[in-house]
Amino acid sequence: MNAICKLFDIKYPIIQAGMIWCSGWRLAAAVSNAGGLGIIGAGSMYPEVLRTHIQKCKAHSDKPFAVNVPLLYPNIQELMDIIVAEGVKIVFTSAGNPATWTNFLKQNHIVVVHVVSNTKFALKAQQAGVDAIVAEGFEAGGHNGREETTTLCLLPMVKEAVHIPIIAAGGIASGKAMLATMVLGADAVQIGSAFVLAEESSAHSHFKAKIIAAKEGETHLRMKKTVPVRLLNNNFADSIAQAEAQGASAEQLSEILGKGKAKKGMFEGDVQDGELEIGQISALLKETKSAAEIVNEIWNDFIAAKNNIINL
Amino acid sequence: MNAICKLFDIKYPIIQAGMIWCSGWRLAAAVSNAGGLGIIGAGSMYPEVLRTHIQKCKAHSDKPFAVNVPLLYPNIQELMDIIVAEGVKIVFTSAGNPATWTNFLKQNHIVVVHVVSNTKFALKAQQAGVDAIVAEGFEAGGHNGREETTTLCLLPMVKEAVHIPIIAAGGIASGKAMLATMVLGADAVQIGSAFVLAEESSAHSHFKAKIIAAKEGETHLRMKKTVPVRLLNNNFADSIAQAEAQGASAEQLSEILGKGKAKKGMFEGDVQDGELEIGQISALLKETKSAAEIVNEIWNDFIAAKNNIINL
Repeated sequence: MNAICKLFDIKYPIIQAGMIWCSGWRLAAAVSNAGGLGIIGAGSMYPEVLRTHIQKCKAHSDKPFAVNVPLLYPNIQELMDIIVAEGVKIVFTSAGNPATWTNFLKQNHIVVVHVVSNTKFALKAQQAGVDAIVAEGFEAGGHNGREETTTLCLLPMVKEAVHIPIIAAGGIASGKAMLATMVLGADAVQIGSAFVLAEESSAHSHFKAKIIAAKEGETHLRMKKTVPVRLLNNNFADSIAQAEAQGASAEQLSEILGKGKAKKGMFEGDVQDGELEIGQISALLKETKSAAEIVNEIWNDFIAAKNNIINL
Repeated sequence: MNAICKLFDIKYPIIQAGMIWCSGWRLAAAVSNAGGLGIIGAGSMYPEVLRTHIQKCKAHSDKPFAVNVPLLYPNIQELMDIIVAEGVKIVFTSAGNPATWTNFLKQNHIVVVHVVSNTKFALKAQQAGVDAIVAEGFEAGGHNGREETTTLCLLPMVKEAVHIPIIAAGGIASGKAMLATMVLGADAVQIGSAFVLAEESSAHSHFKAKIIAAKEGETHLRMKKTVPVRLLNNNFADSIAQAEAQGASAEQLSEILGKGKAKKGMFEGDVQDGELEIGQISALLKETKSAAEIVNEIWNDFIAAKNNIINL
């Protein structure tokens, strides 16, 4: 049996990425009900908002789901206490040191997965006792690694280094890409961009329309002097790009970034002056679909690609 | 039969990239003799030097081989006349407009392949009448596209756009990676970094040693304001990175680049102050081998990965 399906007790090794402003209980429950693993993205939620989302997710699905916690979250103890109190069984941690919270979560019988973009942190996470890692490549949307290692290169590097299950992320929106990453050593895939377009995602309809219109080469990794993040081109991203080309410092970039730009762009739909986090593969996404359709299409495409391998 | 094996009349769909300062007749003949397609990299050769390499390649192998011509080469007509006069049967063109030379080559009964890093140029190349394209992702060494599209994302985009055979490049140094790219629609692979380390490559032994020592995250795409190129970290690359971080203009960067740095680094072995072009996957390369060993290992790994697919 697939190691990740067993670990999470799910039907398909397809995980919907926990994403700020896009993945609340509606999306997570829909993905879990379809046989994948839905994740509530806690990064953009106040603690009590997270509690509500967890409760609603449980009310709308009896299937396993997870919560993603960026470890840089300011009042993180509050989040963790809610996660334990509400009986969440799986937590994905990201953007921080896996050693800090893994013990606490494991002591509370929670399955822990940590997101990494390099082998060094994959090893750190394994040592901290996580159950699996997400290896996320340069092509992924949102926050990203400094090494800029692509999914195709990162997977064999991480596979060589760790013995725990690996979930591939970055550039995956089809069953073919899923199979490709599994050939390289992944046990499962985590998919972001495609699920931003799901009907159940809380991304603003203007953001969804902009993703559908996006062409090849219209996302870039920005803010490399602070926390690298892949953004869709718009006024906001252009102003950052311009400042970077002129040698702006980390402080100057943080000033342009300001506050609340991600909410403004992705949740409130200001697609010119807000921050739009999305992956390179968005160029191939052409329509919104239900989360169940996305899960089923990817799974069927994966099976077809597997059956077609004999012809290669 | 595999479309690329048929097109080139070769045994394995494994192509050794034409690389400046590394791929002369010794490497090309060895790869072709091993059943792949060897390529002489004309970019770093004076016309009469190329003639000698073609003649020696023919003397040491009766198998098909190719010449790679960067279309920005200054006295390109001279190169093309030598290619025709010496009866070269396959030419890979790169770094320029595929419309300029494809007709001339086709009229001389030469199979033409063009290297692209985006869909726009893949379509242009198809329209120009080339027989196949190389789709090269962001992780590749040397010159690279502005879109920064990774191999995993680029392949399905190009596959959707063109109907001619596709050769995947960037991040491929194993049979597993080869199978992954073929799942995504490639008919064959072009491999650079692994062949730089071949015993028959003309890369300086100091360059080879530096590649073997290179760790994850030690290559970066530089010179983005002029012609983007992936370089291995050293004094030279650091000085470019520093200038870029301070907002250096294209002119200032060209001044730092100067002349002859690629020869100095890759061919003469000044691994600190010379230019070292290599791909991200170099972090996984651990030893020099004969070209035949590289071809055979990749092919055997590909077959094993294919047979293992049932277990995924």
